[in-house]
Amino acid sequence: MTQGVAVIGNSGPKVRSDIEVTLKVTRSGGIVIILKSKVKSMYGKTIEEQCRDILSFYGIKNATITLDDSGALPYVISARMEAAIRSVTGDKKELLPMMLPQNLYKSDAHRFRFSRLYLPGNSPGMFINAGLHNPDGVILDLEDSVALPKKDEARILVRNALRAVDFYGAERMVRINQGSRGFDDLDYVIPQNVHLILVPKCETAKNIKAIDEHIEKIKAKHQLTSPVYLMPIIESALGVENAFEIAKTTPNIVALAIGLEDYTADLGVPRTREGHESLYARNRIVVAAKAAGIQPIDSVFSDVGDMEGLLNNVTSSKAMGFEGMGCIHPRQVPVIKQGFAPSPDEIEKAKKIVIAFREATEAGLGVVSLGTKMIDPPVVTRAEKTILLAMKLGLLSEDWSEEKTTE
Amino acid sequence: MTQGVAVIGNSGPKVRSDIEVTLKVTRSGGIVIILKSKVKSMYGKTIEEQCRDILSFYGIKNATITLDDSGALPYVISARMEAAIRSVTGDKKELLPMMLPQNLYKSDAHRFRFSRLYLPGNSPGMFINAGLHNPDGVILDLEDSVALPKKDEARILVRNALRAVDFYGAERMVRINQGSRGFDDLDYVIPQNVHLILVPKCETAKNIKAIDEHIEKIKAKHQLTSPVYLMPIIESALGVENAFEIAKTTPNIVALAIGLEDYTADLGVPRTREGHESLYARNRIVVAAKAAGIQPIDSVFSDVGDMEGLLNNVTSSKAMGFEGMGCIHPRQVPVIKQGFAPSPDEIEKAKKIVIAFREATEAGLGVVSLGTKMIDPPVVTRAEKTILLAMKLGLLSEDWSEEKTTE
Amino acid sequence: MTQGVAVIGNSGPKVRSDIEVTLKVTRSGGIVIILKSKVKSMYGKTIEEQCRDILSFYGIKNATITLDDSGALPYVISARMEAAIRSVTGDKKELLPMMLPQNLYKSDAHRFRFSRLYLPGNSPGMFINAGLHNPDGVILDLEDSVALPKKDEARILVRNALRAVDFYGAERMVRINQGSRGFDDLDYVIPQNVHLILVPKCETAKNIKAIDEHIEKIKAKHQLTSPVYLMPIIESALGVENAFEIAKTTPNIVALAIGLEDYTADLGVPRTREGHESLYARNRIVVAAKAAGIQPIDSVFSDVGDMEGLLNNVTSSKAMGFEGMGCIHPRQVPVIKQGFAPSPDEIEKAKKIVIAFREATEAGLGVVSLGTKMIDPPVVTRAEKTILLAMKLGLLSEDWSEEKTTE
Repeated sequence: MTQGVAVIGNSGPKVRSDIEVTLKVTRSGGIVIILKSKVKSMYGKTIEEQCRDILSFYGIKNATITLDDSGALPYVISARMEAAIRSVTGDKKELLPMMLPQNLYKSDAHRFRFSRLYLPGNSPGMFINAGLHNPDGVILDLEDSVALPKKDEARILVRNALRAVDFYGAERMVRINQGSRGFDDLDYVIPQNVHLILVPKCETAKNIKAIDEHIEKIKAKHQLTSPVYLMPIIESALGVENAFEIAKTTPNIVALAIGLEDYTADLGVPRTREGHESLYARNRIVVAAKAAGIQPIDSVFSDVGDMEGLLNNVTSSKAMGFEGMGCIHPRQVPVIKQGFAPSPDEIEKAKKIVIAFREATEAGLGVVSLGTKMIDPPVVTRAEKTILLAMKLGLLSEDWSEEKTTE
Repeated sequence: MTQGVAVIGNSGPKVRSDIEVTLKVTRSGGIVIILKSKVKSMYGKTIEEQCRDILSFYGIKNATITLDDSGALPYVISARMEAAIRSVTGDKKELLPMMLPQNLYKSDAHRFRFSRLYLPGNSPGMFINAGLHNPDGVILDLEDSVALPKKDEARILVRNALRAVDFYGAERMVRINQGSRGFDDLDYVIPQNVHLILVPKCETAKNIKAIDEHIEKIKAKHQLTSPVYLMPIIESALGVENAFEIAKTTPNIVALAIGLEDYTADLGVPRTREGHESLYARNRIVVAAKAAGIQPIDSVFSDVGDMEGLLNNVTSSKAMGFEGMGCIHPRQVPVIKQGFAPSPDEIEKAKKIVIAFREATEAGLGVVSLGTKMIDPPVVTRAEKTILLAMKLGLLSEDWSEEKTTE
Repeated sequence: MTQGVAVIGNSGPKVRSDIEVTLKVTRSGGIVIILKSKVKSMYGKTIEEQCRDILSFYGIKNATITLDDSGALPYVISARMEAAIRSVTGDKKELLPMMLPQNLYKSDAHRFRFSRLYLPGNSPGMFINAGLHNPDGVILDLEDSVALPKKDEARILVRNALRAVDFYGAERMVRINQGSRGFDDLDYVIPQNVHLILVPKCETAKNIKAIDEHIEKIKAKHQLTSPVYLMPIIESALGVENAFEIAKTTPNIVALAIGLEDYTADLGVPRTREGHESLYARNRIVVAAKAAGIQPIDSVFSDVGDMEGLLNNVTSSKAMGFEGMGCIHPRQVPVIKQGFAPSPDEIEKAKKIVIAFREATEAGLGVVSLGTKMIDPPVVTRAEKTILLAMKLGLLSEDWSEEKTTE
């Protein structure tokens, strides 16, 4: 497949911010570019120039290129051209857009992960506004939302997006593919300051260990030092059986998610709204995650139109012990974020713990106690985070500790 | 007990197709036979002759035999006589009836096991019509349905039935006893083309491994090559704890069943119709079985008269992920079989998977996909079985793939 | 802290049977005792004398002691004085009250543990009548019910109570503290004929093994031979994950309890009356305990005023397989005890098993059977206990076996 014609990217009435590149390398005739674009009058010249520069970068002197543009940004054009050239010539040279300086922020193992917004990895139209919805994390998805023939080009697009798109402080996540394809995905995305990798259909500790080790190799090669966190997704009965083993495989695992569509398919049962068929598995995931000291994360709620159903789902999820959910539409973000946010009771309890900790520290005591109960250090850390988040969300004033606590 | 009188078999107003043999070996006087039978006028002579032949086979020249016949077939008469002679003389020589040629069919690890009909192993009256009810399997039971003093004679009767009774294609199963008695049971039944052994009160991987190894020894001795499948029955808290370990002990295990009467007794709680007390255990069995890639099988429904209750039970069982149930009465077979059979939705999905697989194969692709999802090979196998079964059940026409799928 | 003033014990309007000791060791001036007590006219002299004797035992010649007495018995006065002297002087010499001869009774691994009454370890007022409420066990609690600064004095008080208070046949239990403090607790209480140690927040087999080994060391040192049983309390997700491993760590473990206040806090969820959030954990504890052959024990019911709620809780607990519950108030004892006691059906079944066992033994049979079922030896033992208890509770006459069983 290193010769012939490549068609890369998407076009059509519903496509935005993308460009479909049809590339044919010819023997002679120079570079011929045919551009179709609504913004041709304004950006036509710039697009053509970028394409010529890229072809020159790859040493291609004769080619016919048809471009169907729906308002693609330069990093998208670059990704599509690179994928097209690689497909036709087999040239694996990478053409990296500039890493935005604001994209170099770090994450934190214990940060809240209430909401994480799934973005289909080959649909650039959804990338640009994702961060504005203020989810705790964005997931650039290379797995289920990308059709099989589009897997290679999506990988390049996602790599570029991680460098050129500002996600406004959201945790930067990528869901890789299952199997060996997933290992290749890692080679592309790990060097781009990815914070967290979602590992689909994780079934064994061995599976997640191999991924963790591969990431460490890539980090060593690129001299990267920041941790890359892992969120295994449990999507099968075998994954449920091994959930606790999986959860404690490596300290890089910070959360354990369940994927109910695949899980119920594995069980061979329909997924119902009541969810009796998956209650056992969800409970077991919560306990496995909490036992390993990590966050249990619930499955996505599929019916984007049913906001009341979503809220009920969030409420029962939180009551079971889950600490977050995936979002498949931006409108789900605020409901999920607010639903998992600390309640007034939780904030009040956190205040008492933090005050007790401060008093104990001031008094030089080795242990913190609240009433007759000793407070473990992780409980203090968690309380401090709850306080911080409550302040961030405007649920608590900055000088709360100077006010009197109620009760 | 190698001298004296033996009373073998059953008699009484409710007994059918059996013969009660009372044998006394004497010092002199030759063979004296006293026969009581409704069919004496027609078959009296034949029965007497068979008994004389058998006594001669064992070299017994003086004996008094009282026969209380309720229409026993020759294989039953033979089994009862052998058991009586063994009881009195200790002679362990086997007297095997002819193996029917149609009884040599094979089973298949992945065949459906929706319904399996329990047949008390010492009650020949229920054997003859069992196959006509068309259950997926028949279980000749040596355990709970056989009283302690009848264990030895049941073993001989079941051995003979496996050779002489036609079960019309049902999977040929035997439930052995617990402990060392179960190992002895295997010596009798394994050489008779048994497809599957049900192992009651299985509690540890070690337990099922020992049984599997004993079966392999018997197979080697008799130069048998067909696999003998295993279905451990989980009937205790310890079994539930070890269910996953048990399920993956040997590839011969094809299903994992739960027995709720014994399980609730082990827990020390009454078994209720709602079944809250066993919901956790049932869920755990389903997940353990699916995680090991085998079939989870639900407990029997005890109230033979309540067909609506049975249907509800089947529906909720299937919704949980179970793939079959035991039947304690032939009338339960059709309800269970239909309840676990593929639904129209399931058939539709299977059609799509099979079509996708055929198209992928024709196109020379290494992977099969449906939409954006890759289809694993076992899912294809399962879909093919669903299609096959749907055709068998008349739910799908033979030329379905030439018709257009809906949607 | 080996100089200065010590204030030990409790005083106040609600305090009964206690004495608050304020001790200051001085350089000269002899022993000065200031006693405040309602019973001063009757017992003032005796109290003063006891205090002088104790000071003399510790070689203290100059001290000012203020006593605020609310009717303390000698073993309480002794405990408070010892704690005060130790606090001021650091002298660790033990001053043991006489062990009551009636306190030397033994327990039994398989005894019923329906109800166990929690007694805050530093509140002597509740000790004296505890046994009169006839709970299966009394728990002298050194953990959650004792405030941090009172931990040391509580340990001495509990040690004395185990010697000087008659609990009228209740199993003698102590709940120790978590961590290294718990090991120190053991040094004080193990030599006092303690029957059972409750181990709070047990999370790993290693944890309970270390405690078991420490107890064996103390027993060896004091040449004690009676077993000290263990009841680990599962109070976290990690404990739930490891419950089965924990339950089978040592044969001294006779029961496994769940503590729902701490468990739900660990999960980060509120504890509701319906308890959906802990149903999975409770089921798992029941199965783990039964699989290990020990007693599953449910959490306490916190609302002391709601007797109907308590009864519902007991009923559903028993239906799940639990065999007991903690009591935080004496009035809960009879409801819990009766709720978990054998029902008429259970007694009837136990009678049949015991009769079958007797008949089998008389007939010289190796196995016991009831109908077609073999009866395992632990089932016989349990049945015998049920019979014994039913007789004790007046539910069965002493000569029941001579009467005809119904059915």
